[in-house]
Amino acid sequence: MKRLLVIGIGAGDPEQLTVQAVKALNRADLFFLLDKGAGASALLDLRRAICERYVEDRAYRVVEARLPERARDVADYAASVAALNAAKQALFERLIDEAMADGECGAFLVWGDPSLYDSTLRILDAIIAGGRHAIEYEVIPGISSVQALTARHRVPLNRIGGAVQITSGRRLAQSGMPDGVDDLVVLLDAQDAYARLLGQGLEIFWGAYLGTADEILIAGPLDEVAERIRDTRQRAREAHGWIMDTYLLRRREG
Amino acid sequence: MKRLLVIGIGAGDPEQLTVQAVKALNRADLFFLLDKGAGASALLDLRRAICERYVEDRAYRVVEARLPERARDVADYAASVAALNAAKQALFERLIDEAMADGECGAFLVWGDPSLYDSTLRILDAIIAGGRHAIEYEVIPGISSVQALTARHRVPLNRIGGAVQITSGRRLAQSGMPDGVDDLVVLLDAQDAYARLLGQGLEIFWGAYLGTADEILIAGPLDEVAERIRDTRQRAREAHGWIMDTYLLRRREG
Repeated sequence: MKRLLVIGIGAGDPEQLTVQAVKALNRADLFFLLDKGAGASALLDLRRAICERYVEDRAYRVVEARLPERARDVADYAASVAALNAAKQALFERLIDEAMADGECGAFLVWGDPSLYDSTLRILDAIIAGGRHAIEYEVIPGISSVQALTARHRVPLNRIGGAVQITSGRRLAQSGMPDGVDDLVVLLDAQDAYARLLGQGLEIFWGAYLGTADEILIAGPLDEVAERIRDTRQRAREAHGWIMDTYLLRRREG
Repeated sequence: MKRLLVIGIGAGDPEQLTVQAVKALNRADLFFLLDKGAGASALLDLRRAICERYVEDRAYRVVEARLPERARDVADYAASVAALNAAKQALFERLIDEAMADGECGAFLVWGDPSLYDSTLRILDAIIAGGRHAIEYEVIPGISSVQALTARHRVPLNRIGGAVQITSGRRLAQSGMPDGVDDLVVLLDAQDAYARLLGQGLEIFWGAYLGTADEILIAGPLDEVAERIRDTRQRAREAHGWIMDTYLLRRREG
């Protein structure tokens, strides 16, 4: 049996790891550091720094691999993600097979929380269902960018008794603000979908590189700050070569 | 100026505190331990244990107070919550006034994440807006029961590219499963609202006392496990005198 830990490592600030996550890091014989092209080196450096900071008196191996990337500009988004996950699954199976001895414990370090907009759990379940590997895994929750965002803006996610929806930039661009939802969190928006929602009395709380030295926060009525957010995003993405950002849209109260 | 820290302490497992939260605990001169009737003593004990475990070489004071409770069985839920928050605000103002000296740092320990279904931020903003107290505050995010639930069930919160909604038992009882949402997290359900949703092809992932020694997990097709959840909830609430539980409802895939 090989054991795997899927460890949420927070949104960027290494102090957002939980005590449970730190203990989990200290149970691992090896760490899988997987990343894709843009921004990979900065994000890999952050994860290496987490291992160095928190693992005490224990030798560990680091296994690095380049993640496959999703085919862009295809009509069927879900199918392109499914194909990507199949390619990731093949990679994970190969790494588990070749890099881990029986009885060892390997760890995946996942940005934010492993349950939210991350495919690791789905892939591990597919591997287990395939039946070719004797593995078991455990999930350690982590602070998501949603929580890092609301904490830095010091803003509640929900109204009194109200519902909150978490969605992707893609869905927001397609469908706009959902009915019956006053508070909407948007992740993975590569297309400035918020800019299509002017004139609806919305407020926005936006943040990028949350918890890092490069953190940027902008908040205000969407109609007033949308252009500033768009400019800031573009300049930051050019300067860093990548961006991780998220935002909360709220209908104005009353 | 008086400084306040609003610290998320996770869903029940003291190891779910972040390193940032532990550091924040060590900046506090005093802790406000506020709780209401049912279950108060167990929940207060857990928070006291967190202070004792994590505060190092630093004297601190504990200020305990009984929180006002919401008027039950009133038609206007939002109004009853607003009245409750006004009463809480009066209590907070009195405590800040009487228990804290100028320049001191006080901490509120909040279950889960301070941005999600908790009123502390809203109350502090109202106090600051009132202008009678010179205070500033900082928010430390915490692992929410939503994340503790999905980690223990090892289940993703969202489908590929899908939206997730977080709502209350009250709203679910009123409106059922929202349109366009395949994954719904329900908090604060005192009325077994899930039991009204049989026959819709839903799966449920339920958990109570998450992260504690008393943790209970049940998952499966809602039609098959609803009765077991209802019985388990009732027996557990009677045995403990209180219950903290949450669940994820998912439409079956495909």
